[in-house]
Order: sequence, then C-alpha cells, then structure tokens
Amino acid sequence: MLKIGIIGAGRIGKVHAESITKYVKGAEVIFIADPFLDEATKQWSTSLGIQHTSKDYHDILTNPEIDAVLICSSTDTHSQISLEAIKAGKHVFCEKPVDHDVNKIKEVLKAVKNAGTKYQVGFNRRFDHNFKAVKEAVDAGKIGRQHIIKITSRDPEAPPISYVKISGGMFLDMTIHDFDMVRYLSGSEVVEVYVMGGVLVDPEIGAAGDIDTAIITMKLKNGAMAVIDNSRRAVYGYDQRAEVFGSEGAVAVGNDKSSTAVLSTKEGVVSEKPLYFFLERYMQAYTSEIQEFVAAIVNNTDVPVNITDGLEPVIIGLAAKKSLDENRPVTTAEIKNIFGL
Amino acid sequence: MLKIGIIGAGRIGKVHAESITKYVKGAEVIFIADPFLDEATKQWSTSLGIQHTSKDYHDILTNPEIDAVLICSSTDTHSQISLEAIKAGKHVFCEKPVDHDVNKIKEVLKAVKNAGTKYQVGFNRRFDHNFKAVKEAVDAGKIGRQHIIKITSRDPEAPPISYVKISGGMFLDMTIHDFDMVRYLSGSEVVEVYVMGGVLVDPEIGAAGDIDTAIITMKLKNGAMAVIDNSRRAVYGYDQRAEVFGSEGAVAVGNDKSSTAVLSTKEGVVSEKPLYFFLERYMQAYTSEIQEFVAAIVNNTDVPVNITDGLEPVIIGLAAKKSLDENRPVTTAEIKNIFGL
Amino acid sequence: MLKIGIIGAGRIGKVHAESITKYVKGAEVIFIADPFLDEATKQWSTSLGIQHTSKDYHDILTNPEIDAVLICSSTDTHSQISLEAIKAGKHVFCEKPVDHDVNKIKEVLKAVKNAGTKYQVGFNRRFDHNFKAVKEAVDAGKIGRQHIIKITSRDPEAPPISYVKISGGMFLDMTIHDFDMVRYLSGSEVVEVYVMGGVLVDPEIGAAGDIDTAIITMKLKNGAMAVIDNSRRAVYGYDQRAEVFGSEGAVAVGNDKSSTAVLSTKEGVVSEKPLYFFLERYMQAYTSEIQEFVAAIVNNTDVPVNITDGLEPVIIGLAAKKSLDENRPVTTAEIKNIFGL
Amino acid sequence: MLKIGIIGAGRIGKVHAESITKYVKGAEVIFIADPFLDEATKQWSTSLGIQHTSKDYHDILTNPEIDAVLICSSTDTHSQISLEAIKAGKHVFCEKPVDHDVNKIKEVLKAVKNAGTKYQVGFNRRFDHNFKAVKEAVDAGKIGRQHIIKITSRDPEAPPISYVKISGGMFLDMTIHDFDMVRYLSGSEVVEVYVMGGVLVDPEIGAAGDIDTAIITMKLKNGAMAVIDNSRRAVYGYDQRAEVFGSEGAVAVGNDKSSTAVLSTKEGVVSEKPLYFFLERYMQAYTSEIQEFVAAIVNNTDVPVNITDGLEPVIIGLAAKKSLDENRPVTTAEIKNIFGL
Repeated sequence: MLKIGIIGAGRIGKVHAESITKYVKGAEVIFIADPFLDEATKQWSTSLGIQHTSKDYHDILTNPEIDAVLICSSTDTHSQISLEAIKAGKHVFCEKPVDHDVNKIKEVLKAVKNAGTKYQVGFNRRFDHNFKAVKEAVDAGKIGRQHIIKITSRDPEAPPISYVKISGGMFLDMTIHDFDMVRYLSGSEVVEVYVMGGVLVDPEIGAAGDIDTAIITMKLKNGAMAVIDNSRRAVYGYDQRAEVFGSEGAVAVGNDKSSTAVLSTKEGVVSEKPLYFFLERYMQAYTSEIQEFVAAIVNNTDVPVNITDGLEPVIIGLAAKKSLDENRPVTTAEIKNIFGL
Repeated sequence: MLKIGIIGAGRIGKVHAESITKYVKGAEVIFIADPFLDEATKQWSTSLGIQHTSKDYHDILTNPEIDAVLICSSTDTHSQISLEAIKAGKHVFCEKPVDHDVNKIKEVLKAVKNAGTKYQVGFNRRFDHNFKAVKEAVDAGKIGRQHIIKITSRDPEAPPISYVKISGGMFLDMTIHDFDMVRYLSGSEVVEVYVMGGVLVDPEIGAAGDIDTAIITMKLKNGAMAVIDNSRRAVYGYDQRAEVFGSEGAVAVGNDKSSTAVLSTKEGVVSEKPLYFFLERYMQAYTSEIQEFVAAIVNNTDVPVNITDGLEPVIIGLAAKKSLDENRPVTTAEIKNIFGL
Repeated sequence: MLKIGIIGAGRIGKVHAESITKYVKGAEVIFIADPFLDEATKQWSTSLGIQHTSKDYHDILTNPEIDAVLICSSTDTHSQISLEAIKAGKHVFCEKPVDHDVNKIKEVLKAVKNAGTKYQVGFNRRFDHNFKAVKEAVDAGKIGRQHIIKITSRDPEAPPISYVKISGGMFLDMTIHDFDMVRYLSGSEVVEVYVMGGVLVDPEIGAAGDIDTAIITMKLKNGAMAVIDNSRRAVYGYDQRAEVFGSEGAVAVGNDKSSTAVLSTKEGVVSEKPLYFFLERYMQAYTSEIQEFVAAIVNNTDVPVNITDGLEPVIIGLAAKKSLDENRPVTTAEIKNIFGL
Repeated sequence: MLKIGIIGAGRIGKVHAESITKYVKGAEVIFIADPFLDEATKQWSTSLGIQHTSKDYHDILTNPEIDAVLICSSTDTHSQISLEAIKAGKHVFCEKPVDHDVNKIKEVLKAVKNAGTKYQVGFNRRFDHNFKAVKEAVDAGKIGRQHIIKITSRDPEAPPISYVKISGGMFLDMTIHDFDMVRYLSGSEVVEVYVMGGVLVDPEIGAAGDIDTAIITMKLKNGAMAVIDNSRRAVYGYDQRAEVFGSEGAVAVGNDKSSTAVLSTKEGVVSEKPLYFFLERYMQAYTSEIQEFVAAIVNNTDVPVNITDGLEPVIIGLAAKKSLDENRPVTTAEIKNIFGL
C-alpha cells in the first residue's frame, strides 16, 4: 500500500484526495498539508479517513511513512517543494506547470536526473478517454503521416482578475495544456510558434497585461503543423476538441455531454451543452493519471509524463509570448538558447 | 454509517460491493454471504475492507450490526430471503426480478406493507443519466402530452443456454427492464400488451422454450402507446435507446460510447460502438440506485423503486408471454385477475 | 423524346410537370388536363412550355402524340382513368393509392397484364436517397439476415378534416407509404398485422371516423418482424426514419435537414429541424421515380414499382384496419381471401 | 427572358449551361463559345436547346441578342474578356479569380465603375445552404460579437501537376475561396495574414514551386481573428467546414453527405463520407449564384458578389504568399501599397 501525502488542500488537492480514496487501488492518502488548513478541511480529511494534517508541508517530507507526495500548492512553490521532496527521497507528482521560470525547472530537472525516485507532471488531459482515443488512432497509423493537428480549447468563463495577475499569463496557465496536447498527440516537438492574440472577452484582462483570445500556429519537428484556438469564455461551456489530419485520414474528438438526450420541438432540435468545466470534464483523467503514477512507482517503470514533458510546454509558452509581443514567428530554439538548453 | 450486508457474491453482488466501497458516502459493506464462497472471494472482500464473510446468509440476517441487506442471489431465492430479511428488521434492496411467481411477490408485498423498513427493487436503469434526462424532459412538460414511447433494448450476445432455461424467459429476464422503463418514463400503467416474437438469433434458444427477438406494443392508462423492440444479439454492442413523443415534441436518447472519436478515412466515417454490455453501460446507475436507497433509509423517505414497481413489470411480462402464446392482445387486468390482484 | 400528358393539375400534378421539365431528360410534358382548369394554371403551364391544356382528360387519352400519362387526379378516379389509359395504349404512371377498393385494383391488374404498355405506381419514397441507402446496405448483405425493421413516419400536421373524411383512412392515405417501405426494404411480404391505434392528436379526426396515431407490428414472410409508428402531427416537422436490424448489424437513416448548422449558446446546442413536409423532403424522389419510369419505357424494362406493388399495401392497409376494429392480429391471407386473391 | 452567352465550355462552363437550362427561370443560354469547340460539345449544346456555338468568343460579344455573358474560360483570359464584354455593354459573370494580376483586376474595376452593366464574380460558396446558415446566424446576432472564425477547406485530391504550374499557386487557386468566405462570414476585411505552409502531400507540388498544406491566420478589421486550414488531399473526401465563435456562442457547419445512413456492425458505427468534390458539393450553389445574378440584372439591384469582392481575396492571397516566402506576418495594406490601392 503506497502511502501518499498531499501538499495543498485547494480545489485540485481535494480532487486528488477524494479520487485516490475512491478509485486508486494500492495507494492511500495519509497526510494533507496546507498553510491555510482550517476546521472544515480537517473534517473533510477525516471523513476520507486521512490520518494526519498539518499547516507545514515539511511534516510530510520528513514523515518516513510517506512514499510519494502530490504537489498541489500554488505554482510559485512547485519547484521549491519539488526539490525538497526529491531530496527527501519521495516520489513526486507535481501539478502543472512545474514553474513559470525555466531556470527553476532546470534545477528540478537536474535533481530528478540524479534521483532514484519518480517525478510526474500533472498534464491530466493525456489520460482523458477522448484524447487517448485520438492518440491511439494516430499511433496505430490510422491517419498515416501527420499533416495538421487542431486543438480547440475554450474555457466557459474567465478566471478572476486577481488570478489572471498571478497566473503567468494565458499561455502558461491555460494554453500550456494545449501545448502539451500537441506534443502528446504528435509524439513530436514544437519547432516554431506564431501567435495572433487579443483581448476580446474582457478589457480588464487586457488591463492586467494578459490576453483572452488567441490563435497559435506551430511547426513540428516531424513536419506537421498545429493550430490551437483559445478563448477564456465560451458561453456554451468548456469546449475541448482535437483533430489530427494526415495522409490516410483524420481522427477527431468532440465534447463530452451529461447525456445523449436530444429534444425536438417547434423551436429546433436541441442537445446538451458540453460538460461545464475541468472538474466535470476531466474527473476520470485526474484519477487515471494518479493510477499510472502509482503503477510507475510500484512497477518501477517510466512515468507517463516526465520532467521534460513539464519543461517543453513552458518553452513553447515563452515562445508564444515572445511571438505575441514581437508579432513574428519565434523558434523554441531561440528560447532554449536564452536558458542554455 | 449505514452497515450493509450483501447476500450473493456473484457478478452483480461484487459490483455493488465495489461501488458502495468507492462511491456511496454514509454506507459501508461489512458482510458478504455466498453459499459458494471461496478463497478468491474472501481475498477480494478483504481487499475492499469487508470484515465478515459467510456461506450462510442467515449470518447476515442475524447480525445486529447490519442495517440493510442487498439480495443479489439467484432469482429463485429472492422472495424467500426478502421475507426473512424483512422479518429480521433489515432494510432490503432486492435485485430484479423479485420473483418469477406473482404469488410469492404478493407475499413480499404484504410483508413490506406491514414492515417499518424500506424495500427497494433493483431497476437500475431508472438511475441512468440518459433515461433520467428523458424522464426530466417528460416531467417538465417539454414534449406535452405523451403519445408514443419507444424503447430499443438489444443485448450484445445471448446468455448461455443453461441460463436461458432458468431465466424465466426473455420477458421476465430481459424485457422486464424495458417494461419498467415504460412505467418510469410514462409515469403511467400498462393496460394491454401485444407481442410479436420469434427465434431469429439462435435455434437453441427456441429449443429451450424461449424466444430471442420480439416487438411488444402496449396501451397505457394515460392514453399513450408504447413499443419495445428486443433482440438477444446485436453484434455491434448493447443497444439501449429510448424516445418519448408527444403533443409538443419528442425527446430521445442514444447509446453511450467509450469516446467521441470519429475516424474519417477512404473507407468511411467511423465512430465508436455502444458500450459493450450492462456492466460497462450502467455502472453509474448501479451506484446511484444504492446512493438513493441509502438516502431513503437515512432520511426515512420513500424508496425510488418500491415493491409495486417490482410487481407490475412481472404482471406485464406474464401478459406478454400469454400474448405470445395465444397470439392475441392480453390485458394486465386479465393477469391480475388470475392472481386476485 | 417521350411525350407525356398529366391528368390532374393539383399539387402533385404540378410537382411532376415542373420536375419533368427541369430534370427528366428524354421526356417532355405536352398536355395538362384538369376539370377545374383555370387561367392561372394555363399561364403556369405555358410558362413551362406545355403546349396543350384541357378540362377533359380524354383529350389526353385520344391524343396520338402522347406516349405516357401521369394520373394525378383524385384517388377515386385513379382506377377508372388507369383502365381507360391502358385501353388507349398509353404507358401509365399512377399516383398512390391505385384505389381504396381492391376489386377495382384487380381490374387494373388484369388490364395491365394483358397490355403491352408500362404501368408504374407512385411510391416515391423508394427513390429517396436515404431509403435507397438502407436498401442497398440490406441487399449487399451488410446487416445479414433481417430480424427487425422499424419505420417512423410522422406528418408535421394533420390534413383538413374535409380531406380526412375522403382519405380512405390513415392506413390507406398515410401508412400506405410505410407499408410499401416495409415491402421495399425487406424484399419480402407482410403475412400478419396487428395495430394499436388511437386519436391522440385531434378529437375531430376521431369524430370523422379515423385515427391519428398508431403502432403497427407485422410478421414478414422472410421471418423478420416490422414495426411502424405513425402520428399525424409531429410539431418539429416531418419525421421520416427507418432502420433494418439483422444478424450482422443494423442500418438506420435519420431526417434530412436544410443545413448542417449547429448553434451553441447558453441555452443549448441547437441543430435544424427536419425538412418540413413531403414536398421539401421528397422532391428528389419525385424526379427520380419519373426518370426511372421513362427509362423503363425507353428501354422496355420492368417498371421499378409495378401494379402488384400498388395492390399489396392496400391489402396490408385493410388488414390493419380490421386489426384496429377487432383488436386482434389479422393475416393478409384473410383479406386476400375476401377478394379471391 | 434574359439571353446568356457562355464563354468557355470546360467543366464549369458546362455546369452553368446545364444549371441555367434546368433551374434558372427568366434566363436562357443561347450561345456557347470555346476555342476548342468540338463535335461532342456541339451535340451537348444542341441537346440543351442552345442555338449558337462558335470557336470565337467575339461572336458572343457582338451578338446584339445577348444580354449577359458568363466568363468560364481559363483564368489568364478573364480580365481581357471582362474588359471587352463590359465595353460591348454586356452584363458579366466572371468565374474566380478575376485575374492573378492585381493590375489587371484594377483595370476591370475601373471599367466596371464606369459601366452601366452588372459585374459579378463567381464565389459560389456564398450561395451554399450551409455557409448561408452560418452567415444568417452571425447577422442575426446569435453569436454576439465575432471572436474567432475557423474554416477547414481540404480537397479530396490534388490537381495534376500541369495545372498546379499554371494555377497561380494554392492561395490564388484554392484558398481564394476561403479568403472570400472569411470576408463573407465576418462582413469585415482582412488586415494581416500569417501563413505556415508546406509540402506534405506530394513532393512534385513542391517541385512545381507550390505548397499543398497550410494554416493561415488572419486579423480582421472588426477585431476578430480567423484561421484557415488547407490541404490538397483529404482521402476521405472534400472537407468543407466553417465555424464562427463569438461573445454569445458559436455556429458551425459540417460536411454534406449523400445520405444520413449509419451502419452499425462488429467493426464500428459507419456513416457516409463527405460529398466527393465541388461539383457534387456545390451544385446548388452554382445555380443560386446565377439566379441571383439574373435577379440583379432584372431588378437592377446590386450584385451579391462584386468586383471588390473579386479583388480583395487576391490581395489577401498575395499577402499570404509573401508571408510564406518571408516567414512573417504581412498586412494587406503592404500589398495594396505596392499596387497603389
């Protein structure tokens, strides 16, 4: 029985705690740490059968019973806690992004390379049943050589402006999932990025120095091209689609819905809206990623999303930001050079 | 914490045990009884944290800790165990059908009426997200007055002949779910039944005295008509659709699939087959029905599927059988008269 | 150039005249006859380049230039004009139904057998792209042996009560197309019919001695079963679906729509309603049936819908009516016996 | 009755001749000219009732009976014939593109401005039922302010290399339709273009100096962004989709298919491929554009696609080419400056 400590009891920390308790065989959460730990959170953790809580995550790192930690704290603490956890000999699952700062990710990368423990990054969408189906079709050669990869990723509503300000910008906060998806579906690397972006949803997002709408085109190492379209607000719900087109065909996935119901009346033929947001849409994926993390530890196999997978999308995101700022295509090599990669 | 004992550790008993352990808050399974209890089942129950096992279900009924029992044994034992469990003061969840014999169901009905405990019947499909969506649209008046109810219910493969022989016949084994669905979606009662049926899938099913294909039409008390089409083998998978058509429109649900993937190639545009069979298709429903059973006990409210809901589909099934045998429409009143109902 | 005279300049007569003028190569309409011929109709026929008009259809039958006549007059005149046209040596295309009276159809059948000319009946749906696709899949063996045939056929609105009264009843007026579709898709014959029907749309239809809603089940000679569901009013439009299910799979067709547009908003995901009614839905079929009629004449091949195809659905319709009246399954043999067939 | 002469009896000239003869009321084709006029074409034109043929298009321009000419000759002759036809006082419908050379289009534009006759450009897709449905939803405000416009446009197979060489390049030959669609759906103008393109389908296309795959992003004057993805070969057929996303929702259209048939077997659930290519897909649009051209002449109203609509997509196409060549975003203003526009 793998013993897990979760650092950060916010929304995503709670999702993991509940999901592990219910669905992940061979693992149990025995410790939750959160600097803002309150009575309600304690009660919640008790109801899940979690034995220990603390305001200090070091209590987890120093606990000899703990095999693995999940880092679900705020992004600016990810790399620091990662380094400490690796040093403490714990297996680590770190929520995305590892950091906004490439230099800090580099440190983690170095630590991971020298460690005997596992390090997995939380790109949950790779574990989603729809995207997995696309990946399997691509890998099985059903669409031949890849030509065009298309990802539509639109949130149902923009985050609060307070969050926008610390989010690292749309590319590192939101699009980073889509950059990962391009890498995952293609099995290749992004070479060059060009962005058209703007503030169309909410001028306050612009005032906070960010954008809310973008079309991002990419050249891949395997010769294919990719395009992502992002919006911070699709009023009809969380729009999460992907398509890979190639020499022998195309495979595409649409949105998940709460039922297959279709209502036909005088007004028209109406079906369900997409599932509202990531908690509704990706719950199964949050479970699967931890199941595979646990399996990698238990079987001593490679983690499905490693530290390089954590680094590359940040590079692409920085290239995207530079492209937006300078209105020109930017290579990922240019960004890597800056950081001596 | 409601303490549950499960009688019968076959496929459906195991489904309930795992589902309760994972998803049903406020309840835990503490006892499993099965006459064929073996080492593997014991290990499985231990892995779920179930404390007690026995070959004798009486050990559950006499256990004072147990609040509720789930009867998941073979159909011929349902009514007998129901009576004993009610007598023992346990809340009962009984898998469908309560019995093949109306007289025995009558006895259970009488016992339930005099008991202070809850009795719920396992018509799980009422808890399925798709059928619930249809029911909600109907109840919300979105299709106006009901005119036609259509149910397609086709299994992906026929059961073994050994099972066919003890199944009670297709109507009581398979169609009984669809009869329940007609009652659930309409909120009305079946008045008259006419069946066209035959052996089209497998002559051995005919040799065993059963049929494998049928179209069943029904008149309902509310004036609407219903039609079910059944097959024991749809090679493309478990086909579970429903439609209610009325004065203001129609609402229909199709099959659930493992992904929304669509593959377009020279050969055509291909999407996923329906989820294979009831375990894949109705897992969420198996959980929901127990959640609602537990809620009814805890809140002392009416169970969502009561003993009358257990009786009526059997009456309809017997009317269907008589209609098939005599090739004429048969009223449910005619069947009820036979049993003094 | 085949020269055609059209008898009856009502809605369907006009449809054929325009369709032939525009799309049917190798044929031209040179004569229109209608007892209620007015100035507007004359102008319309002139605009199409039709040379002759008359109030008396005999002017068409005696015109030596005319090769073929289309009988688009009221149903009660179909058989009489058919007999006269055959006698006059004309090829005949007769709108459905040939007659409400089987004895009169028998006379036409006899005349057709002795004639050297072609006689085609207007079951236009056989020429519809969707139903043709089903038929082709069935004939290609893609669904294996047929088990269940399902047809949904719902009009968008009921005809005027004045029409209901002379329509011959829903089975001979509306369902007759569906009976033909069962024969067409199965390539087999209906052996037995059972009807559940009622007046759910409009009590005035009931007062006029007809029904407006029905579920009709049928046994076929090839062992398969069929079911039709009919309504005189589907508020969302003309609902025309079919499915054939068999040992190797199923093929189904849905409704045609004016565009593939899907609108996603806060309210839901909305697509187009079905095309409104038969003129919108089956325009292509009206053209194709005449193209094939012309081809059969020119190439001296069998017509695609012959007089037997005109007779059989009337027999089934009468069996359906008897089944409804007597609430019992009725064989087509029973009806045929009455008429010495 | 408007009398039409068609210049060029190639594929598209023939499409227009047949379509006008069959479907366009108030117009008739009386003259066909083609330098390669052969016996087969003469017979074909006779069969359509077209009175005159010639190898010299001047015979059409000098024919006083002719009201309007359709220029369906090779692209390099469009502007020259346009100028002559305008001078001859004919209304002109010119197939796209008006020319590959902006200076020549400018001359036509000048001539059109001074002429009292109509000049329409053949962007047929504006008349397609699907794209019209998108446009109507956008214009009705159903999606609010526009944010993102997406167009997928993939041919089923690449043209012969001989054609590629004289095509003007993919942007002016194929994408030009999509540039027009962006302008049509948005009702706005393209300000800036960035292209990622490559040779992924066929190296011979690259050897001929062209590309076969591209993702083109655009900024529009109204603030929205647009993206087109093109491929010269989608093995599953002609892929023609569009989506407009905005502040209040999204409207999207998919491909047309030859039937709604869905075949479910052990192998999967298969529906039809898209209609094969432009002749199958846009036949209705070819008719509608001429109907509206005729209506504009008869009613003396504005043509639905004017010479500016003919010029702008060429400007965008040149910007796209420059963007591809120089790997940078290029404004349409930059191109216009070159040509003093």
